[in-house]
Amino acid sequence: MDIISETAQDGILERRFDLKVGDETVPGLHWLPEHADAPHPTVLIGHGGTQHKRVPNVLGLARQLVAELGYGVVALDAPGHGDRMTEQERAEAEAFRAARQAGGPLPPLAASRRARMAAVAGQAVAEWQALLDDLGSEPRWADGPFGYWGVSMGTSFGLPLVAREPRISAAVLGLNALREGSDQQRADAEAITIPLLFLFQWDDELMSREAGLALWDAFGSAEKTMHVNPGPHVGIPLFERDAAAAFYRRHLGG
Amino acid sequence: MDIISETAQDGILERRFDLKVGDETVPGLHWLPEHADAPHPTVLIGHGGTQHKRVPNVLGLARQLVAELGYGVVALDAPGHGDRMTEQERAEAEAFRAARQAGGPLPPLAASRRARMAAVAGQAVAEWQALLDDLGSEPRWADGPFGYWGVSMGTSFGLPLVAREPRISAAVLGLNALREGSDQQRADAEAITIPLLFLFQWDDELMSREAGLALWDAFGSAEKTMHVNPGPHVGIPLFERDAAAAFYRRHLGG
Repeated sequence: MDIISETAQDGILERRFDLKVGDETVPGLHWLPEHADAPHPTVLIGHGGTQHKRVPNVLGLARQLVAELGYGVVALDAPGHGDRMTEQERAEAEAFRAARQAGGPLPPLAASRRARMAAVAGQAVAEWQALLDDLGSEPRWADGPFGYWGVSMGTSFGLPLVAREPRISAAVLGLNALREGSDQQRADAEAITIPLLFLFQWDDELMSREAGLALWDAFGSAEKTMHVNPGPHVGIPLFERDAAAAFYRRHLGG
Repeated sequence: MDIISETAQDGILERRFDLKVGDETVPGLHWLPEHADAPHPTVLIGHGGTQHKRVPNVLGLARQLVAELGYGVVALDAPGHGDRMTEQERAEAEAFRAARQAGGPLPPLAASRRARMAAVAGQAVAEWQALLDDLGSEPRWADGPFGYWGVSMGTSFGLPLVAREPRISAAVLGLNALREGSDQQRADAEAITIPLLFLFQWDDELMSREAGLALWDAFGSAEKTMHVNPGPHVGIPLFERDAAAAFYRRHLGG
């Protein structure tokens, strides 16, 4: 982990780093209590599609977990996102955002984007695992426990990550649904047995209610709670951030 | 409100009272902070079928809301429950409990009980409203705000109560479902517009998933969150008590 810069605000340290994973340079952010010398839990935040490591909902959750619980938090730019976007990807993301704001049908690029994202899921998982390896080199956060938070694309990548990665012991997922014919996705969901909080929007324009419920139903976890709220895909109520903090406190301590 | 007895434990006062409502004497409990002179919010707890005002889940929630938030809490024996049971009702309730514990099919009395409960819903609503009138005579809790908590039968009675009673400004409901052909139930749900937390058990042996989701969907509230957990009717995880406390704190203060 190469530290690029460090800033502090309101007792929260924000470290901008680059992580080398094979040929890729993965830009990330690490938030932690400014004067924390003791070991503490760390939550990994996987941002949504077209977003990046420092969008307001990632930053807000990160700062809350550090300030309230004394946790560390890490966010990475996912493959093809943030500082890793090509010009074409940037243009597509802009078109997608504009179409969604206009409220009309989403452009066909959505399907191609989704296919591309599916193709890089393995890469995203490898990057999170490299990040966990790297954190393990520093005694302050080597032992975890580690949590994961990611909805929408953050769940698309989070499913295979959490299914394969024993170091993650509690996860908040959501805004995602069981895809018909995707045996791998179902197998990943069934392989997940850690405590889960699953956030779902009842009027999600990208996911059907039935398929969202079916994904939650497929998880192998004994403790899995689904929080359903009215409203569109981008519209999880802010109080669910408090629910996530309470969930992590229960399972990761702090 | 005639105070029958008062006890205090761990800073929590428990007052056993009788409330006269028409010809009925309604036994109730009022928990409050032992040395609270200031106004504070009050939550009304409606217990489930075959239960009473001091079953462990009612007592546990009541003590938590007093200790953590400084609230007052009131529970009443519903019509035909607790100290108001006839010998026949007591025998039926015992049979119902025994059948549920045995895990077999529920006895036919369940249907007759349900019909009887539906017949006394209006009485139950009148008793809660008389209780609110009575609380209004004491400045310490006259102004509220007031919340309601009740699942299963506590929701059967809570729906018409919350739909009609403007003094209640936040409610936790659940373990209930939209009954086909019940226009009144649907109308009550649609008339409710206060913030709601709705608790549902995915493997509820008494309610179908579809009908439970349909009830939540029918509520008129802009803020309504459904928490779904795996498990049977009697099996809401204990952490949902913390979620209820956080919900009340957000809407009633304290």
